[in-house]
Amino acid sequence: MPKWERIEGGVTTPAGFQASAVHSGIKKNGALDMALICSERAAAAAGVFTTNLGAAAPVIVSRRNLEASRGRTRAVVVNSGNANAATGKAGERLANDTARAAARLLGVAPAEVLVASTGVIGVPIDPELIGTALPELVNGLSAANGAAAARSILTTDAFPKTCALRSRVGGNTVHIGGIAKGAGMIHPKMATMLSFITTDLAIPAAHLRTTLRAAVNESFNRISVDGDTSTNDTVILLASGLSGVAARSGSASGKLFQEGLTEVCQTLAQMIVKDGEGATRLVTIEVSGAATPADAERVARAVANSPLVKTALAGGDPNWGRIYCAAGYSGARVDPARIDIRVNGMLLCRRGARADFNESAARGEMARDAITLGIELHQGSANARMWTCDFTAEYIRINSSRS
Amino acid sequence: MPKWERIEGGVTTPAGFQASAVHSGIKKNGALDMALICSERAAAAAGVFTTNLGAAAPVIVSRRNLEASRGRTRAVVVNSGNANAATGKAGERLANDTARAAARLLGVAPAEVLVASTGVIGVPIDPELIGTALPELVNGLSAANGAAAARSILTTDAFPKTCALRSRVGGNTVHIGGIAKGAGMIHPKMATMLSFITTDLAIPAAHLRTTLRAAVNESFNRISVDGDTSTNDTVILLASGLSGVAARSGSASGKLFQEGLTEVCQTLAQMIVKDGEGATRLVTIEVSGAATPADAERVARAVANSPLVKTALAGGDPNWGRIYCAAGYSGARVDPARIDIRVNGMLLCRRGARADFNESAARGEMARDAITLGIELHQGSANARMWTCDFTAEYIRINSSRS
Repeated sequence: MPKWERIEGGVTTPAGFQASAVHSGIKKNGALDMALICSERAAAAAGVFTTNLGAAAPVIVSRRNLEASRGRTRAVVVNSGNANAATGKAGERLANDTARAAARLLGVAPAEVLVASTGVIGVPIDPELIGTALPELVNGLSAANGAAAARSILTTDAFPKTCALRSRVGGNTVHIGGIAKGAGMIHPKMATMLSFITTDLAIPAAHLRTTLRAAVNESFNRISVDGDTSTNDTVILLASGLSGVAARSGSASGKLFQEGLTEVCQTLAQMIVKDGEGATRLVTIEVSGAATPADAERVARAVANSPLVKTALAGGDPNWGRIYCAAGYSGARVDPARIDIRVNGMLLCRRGARADFNESAARGEMARDAITLGIELHQGSANARMWTCDFTAEYIRINSSRS
Repeated sequence: MPKWERIEGGVTTPAGFQASAVHSGIKKNGALDMALICSERAAAAAGVFTTNLGAAAPVIVSRRNLEASRGRTRAVVVNSGNANAATGKAGERLANDTARAAARLLGVAPAEVLVASTGVIGVPIDPELIGTALPELVNGLSAANGAAAARSILTTDAFPKTCALRSRVGGNTVHIGGIAKGAGMIHPKMATMLSFITTDLAIPAAHLRTTLRAAVNESFNRISVDGDTSTNDTVILLASGLSGVAARSGSASGKLFQEGLTEVCQTLAQMIVKDGEGATRLVTIEVSGAATPADAERVARAVANSPLVKTALAGGDPNWGRIYCAAGYSGARVDPARIDIRVNGMLLCRRGARADFNESAARGEMARDAITLGIELHQGSANARMWTCDFTAEYIRINSSRS
């Protein structure tokens, strides 16, 4: 059974993909703010988008284009620094015109171009900036520009987020690569997060959709920074087929692809949490012994979203009572008298009351950069896992300053 | 039609109530940490308690005693500094023993005493501290000690919360008085908030319950500081009947009582939000034009709980995009293209896009101590109102320090 191996790289690592990045002027500070990701030939494509009813113009246009092209995509145009959300009909026209203009320059059909944006809400983008940038983006396309593309989609992020995997199937080498951005407005339902993932496996669009949905549910939908679901969340997956290997639903290569895609998505998702605005710790929440998977997820989400748990994490305080409290109001079937709570394996709460633990050792565990909170409910056998970060004064500073 | 008049006072203002407060030693800093509220004769009583499944021992005991006594109560014993939550069977025994010991000292039935606690979770209370304090509390009972009782129930609160109303019915003077505590772990579903309310109206226990529930739904259940529903939330209402005026369901005096009780609850609830940990502004959220009351409430709750809206409020930033975003993910039926958003009446967003407003004037409105955010959905005629506060670095400081 072939395995995936982690390698350096990102969205241009799989065969058949190029990228470019420029500073268009949307960001005022001179940083890269537009990217183009392009497939040499029409790629099978799938997308997962925000559940926010106030979906931004690029989300509306990308959904429509994916449907019109029946999951056939040549390119994705991304801008950072402006979300093009709550911008009315003019914003939708701009997103549409961007796809059309890029399609014209690339010599492809307009529906074969997708768009994505991230940044401030409610401010119109100057169309001239995009009109000037698009030819530069097309001219700059190269397989060497994956890292620049990863940098260009960032907003309040502290570092770029890339991941690439390689495997061998038969005599062929196959790849999955991805980039992501996101640091605030991050919520399990989907976040102001963008992620673009490519592969050189050959996969029909329908299978691509179900595989992507499954991977997103175990990764981007399992992270929380602040509980706000953005208007712009987008994950787009493109499959070029250039490896010559097909990954079909139910086949060994289909299973391999699902595993690799989930690993890429989880790696990028954890990077987003690690880069959570003001965050100092990556926290894994592992709920076990729940009556049902839905109950396990409810407890994990309540703990991951509790400002009191997250501020205790910031302070390195083994305040298990706040975790116990969040489990109690989560809406899950929970018997508080049966709950065990552990930090990095150390038992803090046994059957709903304080365990006999060493306070300073517990503070030592809570002070680590990576913390696993284990919550055993003793109600059944269902599990759930989520990733979150601590909640620091720096989060407040970032979000209360004028943007 | 008689009206209510606001007067100084609190829980001992209505005829027939006394209170006392002492420092028992549960708080380490020497502050008042126990209170006794006592009715001269058996009062009709109603209680509303936390929905958290991990309800604290005093909540379990008070629910049980209210049921056993069929809503007949003589006294309430309250301690601050320790929640007596997640303390197992020993904690429940302590809460029970506290009620029994107080009943013995007062010469009443054990089920006629209710208990309430607030403070840290998961730490046992030393029974000796309570055993020593109870006789002092009984000896200290006086109608002059309402303010001391109000101070003794505080934890991270910055100021005591009291409210009293007076009215005339026929030739008789009637009163409602209340005290409350709460600053953190505050959520619309009910919060670490305690409130004790008294009246000298004569009201059957069944009617007392429905009136209290209606008042709580329009007050304590409409506030949010941080979205955490505590294990200890308690509102207890006692009616002595000593005014000689009966307030029956459906009668004019019943209506008067409902209005007064709602006013007392809303006043205390707003004081809790104003005293929200680290808060600098009291924010009223008014949603109008929703398709249904449930939709209006969903939007109000999403906006009130959004950390991004609350940090924008802290910074005095008229970032209406974050309000628009929260409405979009609230789960309510919302057409983003129809949303209007106002701050203190000034239009920031018209039909889902930026209105033509003066930026510095908008910043001026956002910098006020009291802010009203108006959200008009243009979908129907249902309304909802909530109160919240801004989210500052001070909240993080308070909650990340070791407690």
